[in-house]
Amino acid sequence: MADRPMDMIRLDFDNLMAPGLSGGVEADEFAGGMAEAFGRAHAHVEAQRATGVLGFLDLPYAQESGQQAQKLADGFAQWFEDVVVLGIGGSGLGAKAVRDALLGPYWNDRSADGRDEYPRLHVIDNPDPDTMLGLLQRVDVAKTLFNVVSKSGATAETMAQYLVVRDAVERAVGAEHARGHFLFTTDPVGGALRRIGDAEGIPMLAVPPNVGGRFSVLSAVGVFPAAVCGIDTGELLAGAAAMAERCRSGRLAENPAGVLATLLHDAERAQGRSVHVLMPYSDRLRSVALWFQQLWAESLGKAKNLDGVLTPTGPTPVPALGASDQHSFLQLMMEGPDDKVVLFIEVEDHGPDAVIPKRHPEMSEFAYLGGHSLGELMNTERRATAEALRQQGRPNATLYVPRITPATLGQLFMLWQIATVYAGALYRVDPLDQPGVELSKKLTYGLMGRVGAPRPAMREPDPRWRI
Amino acid sequence: MADRPMDMIRLDFDNLMAPGLSGGVEADEFAGGMAEAFGRAHAHVEAQRATGVLGFLDLPYAQESGQQAQKLADGFAQWFEDVVVLGIGGSGLGAKAVRDALLGPYWNDRSADGRDEYPRLHVIDNPDPDTMLGLLQRVDVAKTLFNVVSKSGATAETMAQYLVVRDAVERAVGAEHARGHFLFTTDPVGGALRRIGDAEGIPMLAVPPNVGGRFSVLSAVGVFPAAVCGIDTGELLAGAAAMAERCRSGRLAENPAGVLATLLHDAERAQGRSVHVLMPYSDRLRSVALWFQQLWAESLGKAKNLDGVLTPTGPTPVPALGASDQHSFLQLMMEGPDDKVVLFIEVEDHGPDAVIPKRHPEMSEFAYLGGHSLGELMNTERRATAEALRQQGRPNATLYVPRITPATLGQLFMLWQIATVYAGALYRVDPLDQPGVELSKKLTYGLMGRVGAPRPAMREPDPRWRI
Repeated sequence: MADRPMDMIRLDFDNLMAPGLSGGVEADEFAGGMAEAFGRAHAHVEAQRATGVLGFLDLPYAQESGQQAQKLADGFAQWFEDVVVLGIGGSGLGAKAVRDALLGPYWNDRSADGRDEYPRLHVIDNPDPDTMLGLLQRVDVAKTLFNVVSKSGATAETMAQYLVVRDAVERAVGAEHARGHFLFTTDPVGGALRRIGDAEGIPMLAVPPNVGGRFSVLSAVGVFPAAVCGIDTGELLAGAAAMAERCRSGRLAENPAGVLATLLHDAERAQGRSVHVLMPYSDRLRSVALWFQQLWAESLGKAKNLDGVLTPTGPTPVPALGASDQHSFLQLMMEGPDDKVVLFIEVEDHGPDAVIPKRHPEMSEFAYLGGHSLGELMNTERRATAEALRQQGRPNATLYVPRITPATLGQLFMLWQIATVYAGALYRVDPLDQPGVELSKKLTYGLMGRVGAPRPAMREPDPRWRI
Repeated sequence: MADRPMDMIRLDFDNLMAPGLSGGVEADEFAGGMAEAFGRAHAHVEAQRATGVLGFLDLPYAQESGQQAQKLADGFAQWFEDVVVLGIGGSGLGAKAVRDALLGPYWNDRSADGRDEYPRLHVIDNPDPDTMLGLLQRVDVAKTLFNVVSKSGATAETMAQYLVVRDAVERAVGAEHARGHFLFTTDPVGGALRRIGDAEGIPMLAVPPNVGGRFSVLSAVGVFPAAVCGIDTGELLAGAAAMAERCRSGRLAENPAGVLATLLHDAERAQGRSVHVLMPYSDRLRSVALWFQQLWAESLGKAKNLDGVLTPTGPTPVPALGASDQHSFLQLMMEGPDDKVVLFIEVEDHGPDAVIPKRHPEMSEFAYLGGHSLGELMNTERRATAEALRQQGRPNATLYVPRITPATLGQLFMLWQIATVYAGALYRVDPLDQPGVELSKKLTYGLMGRVGAPRPAMREPDPRWRI
């Protein structure tokens, strides 16, 4: 690392601007009203930061907690063949994004040797019995560590998974040895998981109180799973720190998170482009697009604005994948309603590449492929698709990732997290709460018989409308 | 099968109708104008069917081609440890949907014995070099069958993958034995792949000319990968046939595909609810939601209507997953703009279930979970979420799948395919073409140097808009 400067992500937003994009943003609008609007959003976020609610901004610098996660990981890595993360929502998606980007598509299929003796990594983010029972058959429970992640320590799905797994571990290794197979990632002080951990002496990592689940990927939630599989988490956090520095500027033209937030907000508000598609051309980054979806949707989808006025707000984030989705979703993006903005991610250097052999020179349909590489094909298709959309008047932008490394992934995470709080300020909503998920939880408590939760009166469906 | 009636999917659309849904569809509107509009769409589709363009409707009855795929599969299954499908768009997503739903999440991790000696199944639907090289390390190429799927026989991504794989196979087993490791699924008469197959004596399966990629899951495209892993494809097709029969009726109130198409079209046109979310509460059906997305997006996203008038059309389909997305996307669905319809899928019987042990009766936060099962938790959460959305005035409906079997999966596929052509008729667009994906292909040809494709003039981005 030290002898090579850090790879830096670049944002190219030419295809959102006039005259490249017909009807795009004018340079003086960008430098004028937009820069001013961003200035206000920036000031709002700086004020929020000063009150201490934006804990995710401090995570890259949280030396102590990072080292604690690393130390626990170093200790565990040699003992376990499999590590299973039990967590839902942002907790699960963050760990998945790290795993898929940095360990690659076949990590869990490799031999121990092929993994440099690091464990396999599973993220079980849904309480589907089929997946849970399949997992328990697939791993050797006696050689498995379960990292239970719940900030509140009471997440129904995660606690249900924990109870099932706990039983399986006790059956496999005996009740007295079970505690050695668990690591809890939870609130530093309170909650049921913390109480169990304290009572049983189970090792625990903390999610800072000012870091919500969807902003937690750079806390122990993402750092422990990364570290236990040998990922350089120092580099992950250094990348995040570098991006946080770049995104500190109050000048729009210098701040990539500001540009993303401002132009996406404008596209939605001024032009009704409410569908925001994140489309990496890389299998490894598919999960990053899913992680982005939960971040953008849950942070900006709000009924009330900051003044408490009812004004349902929020763009619809959609994850896509290039080149695959050129054979499906692209049709809608090119020809359907002009209500979308596409954010591409291009990986400039895919690493080891596969050259396409020259065979069948007589077959003009595909002979031209010979001599190029698969990585070249991917990136050429992305470039062609961005240009096709531009020619159609459809706005798009591209994040160029030099290589997929812990440092560039850390940058990506931080870029979108900061863009999210700027977007919150521009939309004038609270990007940190999620009141809309409570009613469903409350009804579930009632239906499942939680003490103190009244059984809800559920509507009896009209049989005419069931066929 | 014979001694038990087929499990049938049910559609409950009470939460789209008044008075259950505030502002929902009135019964007399449903029985009046909507039934008439559907009657016209039904007549349009019946006329299309008569011209022979809706080949997917015949696939459940295509005994001969189904048997041919089965016969090849029976022959191959015992020879190969791994089967790799190379196909993109609908071709890849169809095979994935079948695999994930019917083989389950850990099929490829099981021992040969755990797979009843059937092969592992990989679907590589993106020409990402990292995935391709990872796959070639992961499998023993000498014991692997590659099923190359391209209707035209010239799909750039798939042919590039074929050329790379062909080289690897020849290196592993020698040029003279390579042909035994391939099966082509392509046009019955023409195209490059057919010509190569003919010249080399490679076994081939046909995609009927009147079946497009996104409607091909019940052709050899989906049937071969299913059969080679021991799935009862007769049951898959019988399920599809049963649904095709149910959806033959011109009476809206009896036709589930008609109800889906009519109510989703109306939600978009009359109420601006343009985001159509398919949200199964089942990990196995996650890929079905992705398959639905490509089908709905590419079929309905059209610039011109049937009169050739420019009128960009098409709802935005979004795949989601319960219960996971209750911890993210649900916030937007509950509180964000009222521009969405949510289609749930509930699996009524998850099969072997995991009972949640009763531990920590003192912890009221989660003690209530004890004694319930994970499947019960999933289904209760779905019910609670549907009710929460209803109380919020947000439209939703539920497809009840008794169990995930080949027969119910076949029904699901056919239901959505028929709903798609009805929706095409209601939107007055051609659901069978995809002209919007051509420009990107053309630009790629030019950039890659295909003979006869002029090098395109690409816009030079303004360096001011790159940071």
